[in-house]
Amino acid sequence: MEAKPPSESRTTLTDLVLPSETNPLNNLFGGELLARMDRAASIAARRHSRRIVVTASVNHVAFNKAIPLGSVVTVEAAVSRAFKSSMEIFIDVWVEDRESGRRTKANEAIYTFVAVDETGAPIQVPALEPETKIEKERFDAALRRKQLSLVLAGKMKPNEATELKALFE
Amino acid sequence: MEAKPPSESRTTLTDLVLPSETNPLNNLFGGELLARMDRAASIAARRHSRRIVVTASVNHVAFNKAIPLGSVVTVEAAVSRAFKSSMEIFIDVWVEDRESGRRTKANEAIYTFVAVDETGAPIQVPALEPETKIEKERFDAALRRKQLSLVLAGKMKPNEATELKALFE
Amino acid sequence: MEAKPPSESRTTLTDLVLPSETNPLNNLFGGELLARMDRAASIAARRHSRRIVVTASVNHVAFNKAIPLGSVVTVEAAVSRAFKSSMEIFIDVWVEDRESGRRTKANEAIYTFVAVDETGAPIQVPALEPETKIEKERFDAALRRKQLSLVLAGKMKPNEATELKALFE
Amino acid sequence: MEAKPPSESRTTLTDLVLPSETNPLNNLFGGELLARMDRAASIAARRHSRRIVVTASVNHVAFNKAIPLGSVVTVEAAVSRAFKSSMEIFIDVWVEDRESGRRTKANEAIYTFVAVDETGAPIQVPALEPETKIEKERFDAALRRKQLSLVLAGKMKPNEATELKALFE
Amino acid sequence: MEAKPPSESRTTLTDLVLPSETNPLNNLFGGELLARMDRAASIAARRHSRRIVVTASVNHVAFNKAIPLGSVVTVEAAVSRAFKSSMEIFIDVWVEDRESGRRTKANEAIYTFVAVDETGAPIQVPALEPETKIEKERFDAALRRKQLSLVLAGKMKPNEATELKALFE
Amino acid sequence: MEAKPPSESRTTLTDLVLPSETNPLNNLFGGELLARMDRAASIAARRHSRRIVVTASVNHVAFNKAIPLGSVVTVEAAVSRAFKSSMEIFIDVWVEDRESGRRTKANEAIYTFVAVDETGAPIQVPALEPETKIEKERFDAALRRKQLSLVLAGKMKPNEATELKALFE
Repeated sequence: MEAKPPSESRTTLTDLVLPSETNPLNNLFGGELLARMDRAASIAARRHSRRIVVTASVNHVAFNKAIPLGSVVTVEAAVSRAFKSSMEIFIDVWVEDRESGRRTKANEAIYTFVAVDETGAPIQVPALEPETKIEKERFDAALRRKQLSLVLAGKMKPNEATELKALFE
Repeated sequence: MEAKPPSESRTTLTDLVLPSETNPLNNLFGGELLARMDRAASIAARRHSRRIVVTASVNHVAFNKAIPLGSVVTVEAAVSRAFKSSMEIFIDVWVEDRESGRRTKANEAIYTFVAVDETGAPIQVPALEPETKIEKERFDAALRRKQLSLVLAGKMKPNEATELKALFE
Repeated sequence: MEAKPPSESRTTLTDLVLPSETNPLNNLFGGELLARMDRAASIAARRHSRRIVVTASVNHVAFNKAIPLGSVVTVEAAVSRAFKSSMEIFIDVWVEDRESGRRTKANEAIYTFVAVDETGAPIQVPALEPETKIEKERFDAALRRKQLSLVLAGKMKPNEATELKALFE
Repeated sequence: MEAKPPSESRTTLTDLVLPSETNPLNNLFGGELLARMDRAASIAARRHSRRIVVTASVNHVAFNKAIPLGSVVTVEAAVSRAFKSSMEIFIDVWVEDRESGRRTKANEAIYTFVAVDETGAPIQVPALEPETKIEKERFDAALRRKQLSLVLAGKMKPNEATELKALFE
Repeated sequence: MEAKPPSESRTTLTDLVLPSETNPLNNLFGGELLARMDRAASIAARRHSRRIVVTASVNHVAFNKAIPLGSVVTVEAAVSRAFKSSMEIFIDVWVEDRESGRRTKANEAIYTFVAVDETGAPIQVPALEPETKIEKERFDAALRRKQLSLVLAGKMKPNEATELKALFE
Repeated sequence: MEAKPPSESRTTLTDLVLPSETNPLNNLFGGELLARMDRAASIAARRHSRRIVVTASVNHVAFNKAIPLGSVVTVEAAVSRAFKSSMEIFIDVWVEDRESGRRTKANEAIYTFVAVDETGAPIQVPALEPETKIEKERFDAALRRKQLSLVLAGKMKPNEATELKALFE
């Protein structure tokens, strides 16, 4: 299987914040944003793998900025690194001001998806070939994040997590 | 107000076809696609005008191709011509095959939105400046479509609809 | 197959405007109204044909009057003309004032549905036999609208669209 | 306030059973039907009273017949008796066979609504004047049902419930 | 089949009142509460019977207290009596004040479910063994309610409804 | 403010997996589960703080086990540690087999919420006092997770994250 760049999986979901999706402060519910990011990320994973994909984990979602009712929200997802059958998806969320048209970053999130066959068994996916500077940074950081997950899940010993450990030295 | 190209209002909404959105043949319901197109078109109209916008009319929506459950559907909307306070939005709908990744055109639709102020009164919008060949064709056809609407609504005499009438000569 | 009058397919869908269905001006979203009209029209097409039916096109939907949150909205759909396997459905939308009970016309729309068999292939439907004055007017206009669609889609030459052409002479 | 016949409040909500509304046997969920009946009944109560109305109680809903996915369901609601500020609404639910067009009764239900002013305080409503035989039967039975509710809630002594008590003698 | 206590079927559904679920007075819609109670009751019936279950009837739902937008609502359902293949489910609804944390009773409701096999045919369920004082009171009252349903449906003569009749003597 | 045990904020949301919430493999969508967990976690945060709360971040959600259509899913959320104005919420997700009644763990997730006043400004919350063994373990781990978040966000130097660093030595 040939490696693919992130641009082949990049997925854009621009939509409104509807009244049914807001919390008591009239901002977009965290839960609804998580659901939108999950759909965009699953499409990116599917575009990279051309397989059925299922959500494996969600990590590092920071809700830095409230998104008010009526906003235009753009969710951009792309594969940031591919492992054997799993893919890390990096998601950027932008909000657009109606009057000025200015876009500001509202959130970032990282989801992991696994490609599966019709029976639900994991199946190999193409490698990711990062191209731009930011794609390369995200590609490198993805390995540290994977080691961190394995350590936290007790599936890797901390001192074997070479790239991660280097952070603390 | 300065004229704007269609690229400034172009809006992409890529999303899945979920089980709750399908008809008895397991294809995307016409009504759900109409609702998605309405949301994408309203964002395009807002990006062009930087105003509150409301749907004024829907025309010429042809459902040529069924869109099955689980498909990835991309709705692309952009302003095709601006009149005094109204904007015609041209919408292209694409479906993507999961295995081959090939995109095929599923539908086209034309919506009209009106920009309004906080009280709901119509308000002027910038002109549209088409750039590409297809943008220019859609810009020209938009005038014929507007004349057609006015004739059908009895607000313009058929023989005053110069551009439209030319079609039948 | 015996011809049927519009009264056999007439469908009434009276429902509330709920908070989740409104735009920033607190009026019913165009997209939600399009979806309700699609469901009512599909029932009318089904009652006329007694077949599975799918949306073929939407035309001439004018949103003349905003419909506020909490309104009672009545969508009335009936077949206005039947062709070989397609049916034109004419839809009237009424809004009812809670205090006075007065009903006012909010919108009109025209949808086209096609009757299909279990494989999705088009299948013949009964003719329509209009009875009242308004049913007859809509029946006649349906032919002009069909010619117009064919002309706009490049499937009929303008000068063969006899009924339509007469409008411009 | 002048008395009104049930025909003035009669409300028809014809709609499809969508995939998102079905249970594991592929039939309409009880909960979804309850919600549709509540909306139709609230419109009937509003048409009779021309007031804001709120659900007060639900009684005697029997789900006799499963309603399969894709069915056309008609919910018909009308006021069956008005008391001081409350109204009993009788609801009939019909299902329609696509091929034969035959309508069969699927359910009956009885809801009670109260008319309120802007502060939520109960407010008087017009009397109901039944016209047809079935309307008169439902009108008479409504009094026994009201006594039954009061007895079960401990707000009326069983031997004061004259009409109800007669049933057991 | 061994008898089971109500604690084996007790089901708790605590959730928020979202903006899409409110009426014009900004309180939870009756229809939405009915749907939540139906889901909780169906889980209780399933836990008691370990079978597929379907809603058979809804009775005695009193909406005594409006539940405002943003409230935390707890629906608690448990089987109150089992008959041959049917189960009566008693549901208590509580609302919680955000600031004080105090819970107040908002509603009660009684649903009946029937256990069915894969073909939809009724199938026997275990008996219910009440334990606490309130469980015993609800168990006894369930028999009177069943007789009442049978009498109202014309399936039992009033003077054979021994437990019910005793109320009026 | 007095410290509170996790039992005061524990929140149980038991509900069905409905057809509209499933992916192409007929299992619960990741996005829908994320939304349910968000609602349960927000109620737990509210019960601990008695304040308006907003989602601050989501971390460490592992989807270990697919949850099929029709399942009974229980989401249990409780505050695992409180900081100045933020609270870590630990969420356990259980799935219940209909026939055997056996509950198995399907997922774990960790959300962070911030308590805010009416203007959206952060406001202090009570401390958490863990009681059981597992509550104490989660309380201790919460500090390491907080340090990890700060390190990853560049807001704390790795060698100041004392508890976290110990993991790698």
